[in-house]
Parts: sequence; C-alpha cells; structure tokens
Amino acid sequence: MQPEYDLAALKSFFKENSSFVILSHCRPDGDAYGSAIGLGLILKDLGKKVVVHIEEGLQEHFRFLPGSSILQTPPPQAPDPCAKIILVDCSNANRPGSYFESWSRKVDLNFDHHIDNTLFATLNVVDPQASSTSEVIFRCIEKLSLPCSKEAASNFYVGLLTDTNAFCFRSFPPETFELAAKLVRLGADPEQLSVFSFRNYPLSRFYLLREVLNQTQFVEQSQIAFYILTQDMYQRTGSVPGESENFLYYLQMVNSVIVAFMLEELSPVLTRLSLRSSKNFDVRQVASKFGGGGHKQAAGARLKLGLEEAKRAVLSEIKALLR
Amino acid sequence: MQPEYDLAALKSFFKENSSFVILSHCRPDGDAYGSAIGLGLILKDLGKKVVVHIEEGLQEHFRFLPGSSILQTPPPQAPDPCAKIILVDCSNANRPGSYFESWSRKVDLNFDHHIDNTLFATLNVVDPQASSTSEVIFRCIEKLSLPCSKEAASNFYVGLLTDTNAFCFRSFPPETFELAAKLVRLGADPEQLSVFSFRNYPLSRFYLLREVLNQTQFVEQSQIAFYILTQDMYQRTGSVPGESENFLYYLQMVNSVIVAFMLEELSPVLTRLSLRSSKNFDVRQVASKFGGGGHKQAAGARLKLGLEEAKRAVLSEIKALLR
Repeated sequence: MQPEYDLAALKSFFKENSSFVILSHCRPDGDAYGSAIGLGLILKDLGKKVVVHIEEGLQEHFRFLPGSSILQTPPPQAPDPCAKIILVDCSNANRPGSYFESWSRKVDLNFDHHIDNTLFATLNVVDPQASSTSEVIFRCIEKLSLPCSKEAASNFYVGLLTDTNAFCFRSFPPETFELAAKLVRLGADPEQLSVFSFRNYPLSRFYLLREVLNQTQFVEQSQIAFYILTQDMYQRTGSVPGESENFLYYLQMVNSVIVAFMLEELSPVLTRLSLRSSKNFDVRQVASKFGGGGHKQAAGARLKLGLEEAKRAVLSEIKALLR
Repeated sequence: MQPEYDLAALKSFFKENSSFVILSHCRPDGDAYGSAIGLGLILKDLGKKVVVHIEEGLQEHFRFLPGSSILQTPPPQAPDPCAKIILVDCSNANRPGSYFESWSRKVDLNFDHHIDNTLFATLNVVDPQASSTSEVIFRCIEKLSLPCSKEAASNFYVGLLTDTNAFCFRSFPPETFELAAKLVRLGADPEQLSVFSFRNYPLSRFYLLREVLNQTQFVEQSQIAFYILTQDMYQRTGSVPGESENFLYYLQMVNSVIVAFMLEELSPVLTRLSLRSSKNFDVRQVASKFGGGGHKQAAGARLKLGLEEAKRAVLSEIKALLR
C-alpha cells in the first residue's frame, strides 16, 4: 500500500546520524503529538540524542502521552548543525511555525500523509492513503525491524485513533485495523487511550460546547452549518482555544449538512477558518481561495478579515460551489 | 477467548431446523439490529425460512442496514411451533417486550454478551468478554465455516462499531480489531457504516441535544452529571425518544464526572433511568436498587416514580455509593 520511497536511504539516515530534532505542526492534534513523540521514543531507544519540538509545547490535554517529557517548546536559535531535522505530519515546511523559518535550516526527513505535501525535504516518506502520520512512521519502523516499545506504540495508537476519529469517517482498508491490533499487542491500551483522548476535558470545555451549539446556524436548507468563536466566549466559559477542537463534528451529525465550518476570532482583523465536509464536497477548494489547504473533507485557512466579513466571504464561496 | 459452548449442538440446531424466528430487545441499538439482521441473513443464505422481530420494527435511523427488510414488528400471536426461537443481545427472556411473554414460547437459542445473562435458553452462547453480540455470532459463524455475505458482515460491523462506541471506552483485546479487519475484508465499508451509524441524525436531534446540554447539572464537585428528558422537550424540538441515545456520552467527556445519568419521563408516574460510569464505579449496583440491570459501566432501570422523586432517589443512591 505504501508508495515508493528509499528504504535503504532511510535505514542509513537513522544508522549514520546520532542526533535528531523532530518537529511537528503548530495547533497540534493527536497525530502531531503521537507521531512526533512516538518516533522520538523509537530513536531514543536506539541510543540516539533526540529532542521533539512543537510550538505550543505539551498541552494539558496531551499530558497523558507516555514519554511526553521528550517534548519541548522550540528555542529561538537553531540546533547544532550536525543534528538532523525531521518534520512529521507537516504538508509543508511552514507548518511548525515562524521559529522554524528563523532557524534557516533545511529539512532532512519528512514523514506525512497529507495529499498536498510539497515533498520539501531531502528524504520524503509521504503516503496520502495512510490514516495518519503515525501509521506512515510505524510501517517504516516495521520494515526496518526497529524495536517499538509499549510507550511508542501508545503514541502511534493515539495518532491513529484521533486522526481516524476513532476509526470513523475516513475511507481506509482492513490493514488499518490490523495495524491497530499490532499496536495493542505491543502494549497500547485501547480503553485507557480512548478515555484520555476523548473524555479528558475540563468542565470549561462543556460550557464552551454549550455556547457553540446554542449559536450554531443552519442555512441553505440546512446543507451548511456554522458557528463563530469569539475571544469573549473563551473568557466567559473559562476555556482555551485548543478545547474547541472537533466541535464541528456535532454539526456534521445532522444528516442534511454537507459543509460545516467555524470561524475563530484570532484578532479583530484575523480570523481562523476550519471546514469539514461530507458527501464528496471538497472543502480544500474553499480553503485554497483564502490561501489555506488540507484534505478534501477537512481543511482550513487564516483570513485577514474580521469575523463578519469572513463569514460573508466564506458563505459566498461555499454557496457558489454547492450549486 | 470464547467460553465453552456446545459447537456440535449449535451445528445440528442450524442444520436440522428449517424455520427460525430471531428476536432482539426493545429500545434497540446498533448491536440489537446488527446481530439480529446479520444472523437472519446468514440463515436465509443457507436456504432457511427466517423472520426477525423487534418490538419497534425498523426505526428510521437504522434503515441503512443492508437486508433490513427481513425485519418486522412482532405479531401478537406466536409463530408456528416448528419455528425455532432465537434471542440475540438479550440478557433475559423479558427483553424482547411483552408480546413475547404472551407467546408463551421457550427460547431455543440465545446469543449474548451481557455479564448478567440468566442462561435462559436451551442452548446458550454467551461471552461476557465479547465486545458485542455481533462478535459472539460472527465467531460462531467462522467456527462453523458458514458463508458470510457482505450484507451480513456490514450488519455485524455496525453491531461491533456501535457497542464499542467506535472502538473506545471498553476494554478489549487485539482480536476485536482483527475481527473488524475480517468484516471489512468481507465487504463492510467502515466509512459509510460509521457515517450512517453516527452522522445520520435529523436536525431535530441537534435541537434536542442543545436542550439537554442547556439543562445538564453537575453536582458533588462535578463527579455526578445528569439531565432530565421530558415529553415536552421531545415535542418542542420535534424529536422522538430514540434520538436521545448516547447523549450521556457528552457528560462523560468531562474529566471530573464519575457517574452520568439521565431520567426520561415515560408517564407522570413512570421514569426511565439510564446510567453510565467511569473509573471503576459500578452503575449496575444503582440500577439493581430500582429493579434494573446492565453492565458495570452502563446500566438502566424503570422507576414507578415521577421525575422529581426519581431524581432524589437516584441521586441519593449514587451519593451513598460514591462515599
């Protein structure tokens, strides 16, 4: 299933180098953390020097990930030149955040599963068919016969679990389930990891969800559903931005909804757009109009507009494509 | 893994009889429908005469199940005496509903996975370790080398998917994932079946969820969360009782919550209680105080009390057990 890549080159890369810096994208999700920490633990167990950097560091919700102390917020200065740079779950080299640009370093290795990956690294292992970057990495680990601890397997399991929305809403083959079975055999605990991944939220998130559902709007014969997240809503409920991840799922549960989106106020002139779709509607087309990207059924962008203007612009693009 | 049962007797039972009536429980969920219809299709493909009965017939939300036309609402009179009676996903012989009692028929075969199963049938195939009754049946089908069509596999997949809450929140072994992989190889489509199972709700259910979240209360340092469902709420939102299935899940997402429950007004003097728990709290103990039963982490009962009295009684039992 996995597309062609140079396995021998990958083997040499891990063998011949002794220091690695693993980066993943900002606004990290379960696969960003899981694939980065999982790979970090694998390399550490090989006796390598490893640091993992994610712009936000280790967020509260992901503290359960075993071995997560390997993760640090990135320093402003670039690492030692002999440390090799690996990007995981990033479709392009801008995804880690502005600190990485300031380092002015090339990317040596890139593990990813996004279809719009720009193959920016010296060595690219990209499989758009894979459920998650964790899957891409674990399949390589298997092929290279590298040892995978219970801790690393648990991280990869969380990547797989969260990027497939608990084995739902993506097209994937039986091999994805067989991979999950392998990770469980290596020690990943499906019950514990799912409780931590999906039921580990503070009460503030419940209050935020309540506000979001209360102001959700359905338009165009309920084919489009959307909500707007203001800074005020975070303050009122005592919640933080990361806690609104996956709220679009509640809108997508309505069978008439083809496109669900949300707009988040980052500043009075900057708005984050997040889009989800069903039934073959390609939300990447909408995101790309605003300079963003993603998958066919999940995409996003940042708009240099206030909330109201952004709402009008996005609704107008979606309506045009729906016709 | 599966406990002892008489495989030879099961083989003869299917071979020597030509007419089967399959029943499952009232207030049917995905496993009630999936295991009943799946088994029905298997027997039909063997050239047997098969009818499947569920008290409510085929509910709107489950119309997507392939081959579901095999399902009928039960008639008041008992079937022909030579038709063998099979109960699936029922821990006791009262679960199908009052019509079955009035038939005055013994149960010939019982497939189930509930720990409190009373082994009421002539032949009992009960595995409390199994994720779902669909799993119990599919493992027998495999052992007996009976053909399993894409349609039957899809029904079993829905049973597995819904009873494990999409492979979450239950302790299960790697074999459960391998079973999912087998069903997918037989033709079950994980994406399509998960969309139908979890995203196939009318807008009215969204409005009901909104009302439920708005009136959810957290008590005892937010260790207990609960809501009350009145007939008025159904009418106001245009929704029907079945649509509130799984709403307790949203309360369980809050990390402080140990017990979540809901009370549904069936009449001014009859209240349905549904309980869910985390962290080793056994809700069967609460349900059994009111004459109900279930699993350790999911149980229920019917109380001959009005909503307010029921609320006080249930809260008092839970508080006593929490201490």
